Amino acid sequence: MSRYLSDKYQSLEAYTPGEQPRDMRYVKLNTNESPYPPAPGVVEAAGREAQRAQLYCDPVCAELRDALAARYDVKRANVFASNGSDDILNFAFMAFAGAGVPAYFPDISYGFYPVYAALHGIEARPVPLKDDFSIDPADYLGLDGFIAIANPNAPTGMALTRAQIESILKANPNHVVLIDEAYVDFGAQSCLPLVAQYDNLLVVRTFSKSRGLAGARLGFAIAQEGIIADLERIKYSTNPYSVNRMTQAAGIASLARDDYNAENCRRVIATRERTVARLRELGFEALPTLANFVFARHPGTDGGWLYGELKKRGVLTRHFDAPRIADYLRITIGTDDEMDVLFVKLREILEA
Amino acid sequence: MSRYLSDKYQSLEAYTPGEQPRDMRYVKLNTNESPYPPAPGVVEAAGREAQRAQLYCDPVCAELRDALAARYDVKRANVFASNGSDDILNFAFMAFAGAGVPAYFPDISYGFYPVYAALHGIEARPVPLKDDFSIDPADYLGLDGFIAIANPNAPTGMALTRAQIESILKANPNHVVLIDEAYVDFGAQSCLPLVAQYDNLLVVRTFSKSRGLAGARLGFAIAQEGIIADLERIKYSTNPYSVNRMTQAAGIASLARDDYNAENCRRVIATRERTVARLRELGFEALPTLANFVFARHPGTDGGWLYGELKKRGVLTRHFDAPRIADYLRITIGTDDEMDVLFVKLREILEA
Repeated sequence: MSRYLSDKYQSLEAYTPGEQPRDMRYVKLNTNESPYPPAPGVVEAAGREAQRAQLYCDPVCAELRDALAARYDVKRANVFASNGSDDILNFAFMAFAGAGVPAYFPDISYGFYPVYAALHGIEARPVPLKDDFSIDPADYLGLDGFIAIANPNAPTGMALTRAQIESILKANPNHVVLIDEAYVDFGAQSCLPLVAQYDNLLVVRTFSKSRGLAGARLGFAIAQEGIIADLERIKYSTNPYSVNRMTQAAGIASLARDDYNAENCRRVIATRERTVARLRELGFEALPTLANFVFARHPGTDGGWLYGELKKRGVLTRHFDAPRIADYLRITIGTDDEMDVLFVKLREILEA
Repeated sequence: MSRYLSDKYQSLEAYTPGEQPRDMRYVKLNTNESPYPPAPGVVEAAGREAQRAQLYCDPVCAELRDALAARYDVKRANVFASNGSDDILNFAFMAFAGAGVPAYFPDISYGFYPVYAALHGIEARPVPLKDDFSIDPADYLGLDGFIAIANPNAPTGMALTRAQIESILKANPNHVVLIDEAYVDFGAQSCLPLVAQYDNLLVVRTFSKSRGLAGARLGFAIAQEGIIADLERIKYSTNPYSVNRMTQAAGIASLARDDYNAENCRRVIATRERTVARLRELGFEALPTLANFVFARHPGTDGGWLYGELKKRGVLTRHFDAPRIADYLRITIGTDDEMDVLFVKLREILEA
């Protein structure tokens, strides 16, 4: 820290990204990436745009937003595109919470929500998950602030139904309800059909998970026009060109082959179901998951220790050293072969 | 605007990016892009990374920062990389100005500085340029706040010497002085040699201009470790993965062929000198420029009108409808052929 840093950021604790160690080749089940490469056409599109990278990209992302609008049956004015969904979450916290408007989110959820609140001086009001790690919609009725809910939630993988979310939207007509659908393509119900009806709904999505473009950085949001205009106002006041040429083209190419992406989601779901069954056979308690990861613990086995033993054996998972979840590991669903390696190592560790 | 937008952003006026019209093919001299394609190797590097875009990029940008550190003879801890230099400017305004710390910058300069101040509730104190559009270093001595100076300045193209900037650094030991060197590779003196000596100096750079990567979005900053750590704290609290895989690789590949980039800068400088001479032959008053653009007016000719006449004829320039500079056009230096087209059209307009 320099002696020049503004007081308000001196106690800020940044988000901790999942580790990306380079000391050996790992089976990487720690950051919820897709185990499958981007859709056919993506590489060619990115390469084509790199050839004219001396020209600025389109700050409006017109073609990309039109492709998303066509895909989700809305208009361009209902679509916001930005540099990953983190970027959009940040803008949403800025725009829709603040002085006199606290931010509510589950106490166990995406670790970035409290960071955004702290960054912008927003009062964070974490709402405890129930004992079974589910979100109780009743806890979110008639609140006096901005609400952010990941659905499915991370790191649990558990999801609310669309009807449950609608009850929250109805009960908070004067505040924005952000539904973070980063993982929705793996089996949960999307809230997109509710956008036309609720002007307080902001649905945030990403190309990182179900479309295998985590390294390209592309997020989008769908909402009624007013909310999209608010997000654009913030974006154009911070970094208007944040989605580079290659990424805009990659997104368009990926949408053109959403059949490929959907097939990959089906494969991940099938592998997930097998993984959950095998974990339970090994004595794990696994939460019911609709995401591309599973949150599980082995009774009597320390989560941090198990994480370390797996890492030593070349398998990376994610462990959160936090109250209530320190016993658990979040395990990304990889290919069937990768999960086979996981189970070989788990047996080795648990039988030792 | 939605009815949910936070009060503090309701009067925010976003930055206006240079237009990117698509109604016809223009000679594009309006956004200070390089007229030359990216360095050899850039396209291949970006394509290679697109193939593994399902994996997150390195949030630390380790390899890229190491390449920059080697290029500029500093350490990785002295280098910050982010999604374009706009991103870095935004973080710097956040980190080093704020409550009780106003932001000083020239009244005629990069249009984003006042936007960042407004966005973050920072008191903006624009400092008037002198009558000849130069910056007087004496105006920046012993100020009580953060200072941002583009060197060369935009849209004037005029530069301070390193000694003049050093006088500002010495006279403001308790505040950060940001020198925005977006255009420095076209002939001005860089402040990088001062970084080791002044812990209040933050030098911001970009790959957009002299390295022809405007559409890839890559900016960097060089400063002492404390300031870099402050910028990282803000970055990791907003959008840690903001520099995607393709762009990180493009930046590394570009640095490997900085000879190509330097040769392109020499070509731009040669074209600029010819352009300034030809403008003067046509009766223009052109400010002395060390950037890849020239700021000029034709006495007795309205700047907005001239901009419009050029646009009708397929040549885009930039006109700012603002006090003191409304008569001027900012003309990016393109290829010699592009400048020939400009002069054909200028003669046509002025002789009509």
